Amino acid sequence: MRQTLDFLLNDWLKVEALNQRERFADHSSETFGAVLDTSERIAREKFAPFNRLVDTEEPHFDGDKVHLPAATKAAMDAFVESGLLAAAQDYDLGGMQLPCVIEMAAKTFFSKASVALSGYPMLTKGNANLLMAHGTDRQREVFAANEFSGRWFGTMCLSEPQAGSSLSDIATRAEPDGDDAFADVLGPRYRLKGNKMWISGGEHELSENIIHLVLAKIPGPDGKTLPGTKGISLFIVPKKLVNATGELTGERNDVSLAGLNHKLGYRGTTNCLLNFGEGRFKPGGKAGAVGYLVGQPGDGLKCMFHMMNEARIGVGLGAVMLGYAGYEASLEYARQRPQGRPIGPSGKDSSQAQRPIIEHADVRRMLLAQKSFVEGGLALSLFCARLVDEEHTGDEASATEAKLLLEVLTPIAKSWPSEWCLEANSLAIQVLGGYGYTRDFPVEQYWRDNRLNMIHEGTHGIQGLDLLGRKVVMNGGNALMALAGRINATVQQALQQPALAEQANQLAAAMARVGRATKAAWATGNPEEALANATLYLQAFGHLVLAWVWLDLSLCATGENDFARGKQAAAKYFFAYELPKLAAWLEPVERRDGLCREIEDGWF
Amino acid sequence: MRQTLDFLLNDWLKVEALNQRERFADHSSETFGAVLDTSERIAREKFAPFNRLVDTEEPHFDGDKVHLPAATKAAMDAFVESGLLAAAQDYDLGGMQLPCVIEMAAKTFFSKASVALSGYPMLTKGNANLLMAHGTDRQREVFAANEFSGRWFGTMCLSEPQAGSSLSDIATRAEPDGDDAFADVLGPRYRLKGNKMWISGGEHELSENIIHLVLAKIPGPDGKTLPGTKGISLFIVPKKLVNATGELTGERNDVSLAGLNHKLGYRGTTNCLLNFGEGRFKPGGKAGAVGYLVGQPGDGLKCMFHMMNEARIGVGLGAVMLGYAGYEASLEYARQRPQGRPIGPSGKDSSQAQRPIIEHADVRRMLLAQKSFVEGGLALSLFCARLVDEEHTGDEASATEAKLLLEVLTPIAKSWPSEWCLEANSLAIQVLGGYGYTRDFPVEQYWRDNRLNMIHEGTHGIQGLDLLGRKVVMNGGNALMALAGRINATVQQALQQPALAEQANQLAAAMARVGRATKAAWATGNPEEALANATLYLQAFGHLVLAWVWLDLSLCATGENDFARGKQAAAKYFFAYELPKLAAWLEPVERRDGLCREIEDGWF
Repeated sequence: MRQTLDFLLNDWLKVEALNQRERFADHSSETFGAVLDTSERIAREKFAPFNRLVDTEEPHFDGDKVHLPAATKAAMDAFVESGLLAAAQDYDLGGMQLPCVIEMAAKTFFSKASVALSGYPMLTKGNANLLMAHGTDRQREVFAANEFSGRWFGTMCLSEPQAGSSLSDIATRAEPDGDDAFADVLGPRYRLKGNKMWISGGEHELSENIIHLVLAKIPGPDGKTLPGTKGISLFIVPKKLVNATGELTGERNDVSLAGLNHKLGYRGTTNCLLNFGEGRFKPGGKAGAVGYLVGQPGDGLKCMFHMMNEARIGVGLGAVMLGYAGYEASLEYARQRPQGRPIGPSGKDSSQAQRPIIEHADVRRMLLAQKSFVEGGLALSLFCARLVDEEHTGDEASATEAKLLLEVLTPIAKSWPSEWCLEANSLAIQVLGGYGYTRDFPVEQYWRDNRLNMIHEGTHGIQGLDLLGRKVVMNGGNALMALAGRINATVQQALQQPALAEQANQLAAAMARVGRATKAAWATGNPEEALANATLYLQAFGHLVLAWVWLDLSLCATGENDFARGKQAAAKYFFAYELPKLAAWLEPVERRDGLCREIEDGWF
Repeated sequence: MRQTLDFLLNDWLKVEALNQRERFADHSSETFGAVLDTSERIAREKFAPFNRLVDTEEPHFDGDKVHLPAATKAAMDAFVESGLLAAAQDYDLGGMQLPCVIEMAAKTFFSKASVALSGYPMLTKGNANLLMAHGTDRQREVFAANEFSGRWFGTMCLSEPQAGSSLSDIATRAEPDGDDAFADVLGPRYRLKGNKMWISGGEHELSENIIHLVLAKIPGPDGKTLPGTKGISLFIVPKKLVNATGELTGERNDVSLAGLNHKLGYRGTTNCLLNFGEGRFKPGGKAGAVGYLVGQPGDGLKCMFHMMNEARIGVGLGAVMLGYAGYEASLEYARQRPQGRPIGPSGKDSSQAQRPIIEHADVRRMLLAQKSFVEGGLALSLFCARLVDEEHTGDEASATEAKLLLEVLTPIAKSWPSEWCLEANSLAIQVLGGYGYTRDFPVEQYWRDNRLNMIHEGTHGIQGLDLLGRKVVMNGGNALMALAGRINATVQQALQQPALAEQANQLAAAMARVGRATKAAWATGNPEEALANATLYLQAFGHLVLAWVWLDLSLCATGENDFARGKQAAAKYFFAYELPKLAAWLEPVERRDGLCREIEDGWF
């Protein structure tokens, strides 16, 4: 993988050019490479060897504490010591001022080694990043800084048992905490009551404290909360209370674990139902979880989206790396497992010795499909991270373009790997055959772990609605146009090369077809009709984006060496075997097929 | 499900007409219905409640015995007592002389309730059926009869650790057992030595004895075995030795459990590595597992295929019923889970109460997809079972046609549900969202259990080679022509109905395209080129067959009631959302795309 990663960063994304920018002026290929080396080493030594262990020794709650394998703590300590939590932060925060794209590249090693163990730092980083963007100076100093240092870990608390995709229906309430509620240096102080579900990292003993970022509604004077998302605010709710300088006060906040969820996979990350304000603990003598408002009342979802967009790209990368792990495992197996003989022009000759299964065309197909999914997905994840850097450090024009591209690419960067790198994991099982179905090999766990990614951080259905209902139509469709501009540029370049001209034309046709489908879906202006097939649109759009990524990679991976040929073969595979699926998905979108809208309950 | 099952049996397959045939003359709709009622009740009471238990309390080997939950034994006893093991057998064997299609229909309840528990009787029945077809009178009386009565259970031992898909490479050897080897009333007696892998039901305490059917090679006078499948013979190897009248002799045969496989799913069925003839037991004072030859030396694979074809349809039905179980669970959940509001012409109104998620178009799409996969798959499974009846009891012309149809449909009946009802299970998880990812709901287990079905009884890749490499080209393509005749008959009928004419034309076009792809694949006559994309051909062929099944069901499910509308909607879904995928799969087949054949190891 390292060679591919280096190719993507250096040859394709040309990350070295970032060193010309003031923020990254101290960096060079060498410092970037050193970060990757360190990450690769920690992941290899402290994460990978324990990935099966954290699956079999599931988190266990004894009614008081959550027990995790000792390896989890050791992995976290190694990660914290590396300083990677603050990798992208300012020097004066103890950070390394690394570009986001390098931070993302570093993350690949951890996600591939153990996606579940990687969950804790990813959440902590996202939590602290949100506070850097929306918190007060004091909130940053007290909460974010202690998260970047790894002293405390973080969570995001959005869902409730009765409200997941529909966040407007959360029922957690926050009321001002006494007369001095608005005079607290840590921010306007509230008491929260409610239940939060699916909270990853919601309880553990890995860090000195856990900082929950919690969505809740502040009731009006009539005691009622606003319907919809307008009434949602965001709060910092530490597990243990802290003072204005970030010392623990010794008092436990009124947040308690109601239970752990027992999952299909991703078992190394605790996943919790948390009770806020049920009165198990009584800070200051009364029930209610103490929370500090972040940003303005009613801005909760807007603030949270800052974290969620980042989290979505992170989820996509996690899905990619699970796919990558499966690809590597099945490739290794296929190279050493003898079974059968390739079919020659005159069939098979059973008097010959058996050959490694990598020599069978169908096994190669399954490996090549995986390669196209996971390397393409990795390229897309890194491309998005590079866009984040552009948004933050580019000139105005390119920052604006980057922001637009991110709007439209985030749902793809999240959803596409969740679907297709899961499929890659299924192909990895298939390559191993019966052995792949046993727990003696890692591929079944990758498949189980990966199944979460189409669900959390916005389900597939939600991503489809976001893409077709919002992203491609907002501001007159300028985000879609920004992407079309990029795709067209790649097409034009590829048309210059005889070997790529056919793919270029295929891509141009696919782009045109997606454009037509977008228009056709919205032709009546009725969202009910336009969005009835939004998930299919998402799938088609994803394949379009990945075809573009692969054509662009083909332009870059030139030469006659094995590495370049492999990239070209994966691109060819994607265009020959995958892109043709686009038409099947877009047909119902284009005709605004009403079948699914109109079918009645009683017909099932 | 029962209503759909009754519709398929009575209205579509018109099973009552079978009662006109001599073999089934004592039967009627009432006796058929009684068998289904009994099966439904036993499955509900003895299988379904323990399906999770047999997953969590995995088989455990203490070095001497295999331990299973008590519920497993209770389920087996109830099944045995029902007499269903011999349901299709002659009266004088204690059977009920039920048609195969009714036996298959009875099986649906057990597979849906617990596919893993259903494994034992399915294997036992398949084993005994093989002996009925290929065994001597004595072998039938001693072995098959005791299996049909449930006194003994059976297995099929094909794979070895180094040979799964490539059976020609098995290394288990069988040598004549002493001077009187050919004078044993139970059949020519051999001693077997070798290891057999992936043996479902290979060890347990559920029955008094276990009858293994084992493939092994008989060495020639030079001590060498023949390469290829020509050298493979079939043997009956009982776990405990028996005398000529089927009494246990008290002597243990030299078959021992080397270890249990720890699987991703299907955990309620033990899956074993068995050692034959390693000398752990020494029947008659010497090492070597005693086995009795079935059929002629060298005919082992031919005999075993009798069991494998039946097993393949059974595997397909198992996959279907896992899909069905997930469909029912997710439908129930979608009806009671409130979340969000449907998008109306002017978007969503968050002041309204939340609505059950079944009102969302995307949830309906996921339910409708499941419905089309599982009901279509069920129809195909029953259709194949009905063909078996026709082959056995029809007049010569229709028996010949049935045999041809079975040749070409068996790979589809096995592979298509394994792929698409697995996808249905994934959709069921998606409908439940986060809850679907927990072990508090059954859908994650269905998905895990179902993943096996693309692997065992011939992998997807093997089914593709069987279909494109053998079935559609054999005897001048007469099996494919038989199917085309049936499809065309359905098309002609549907063209008479304005509401179905479009689907009829779509189906005719798909059939023509598959025909062209078949020719194009074989245009050069080079199997290496023709078969390089055989799995894609299998996928396309499967969707063609299912589209045909759905159009034929539409012709049958007429009327204005909810039930018929549901069937029509599922058919529409399949034609609108699924069948268009066919083109994407066939393109590489048609151009004999060489990418996967030609890619080199070093490029990965």
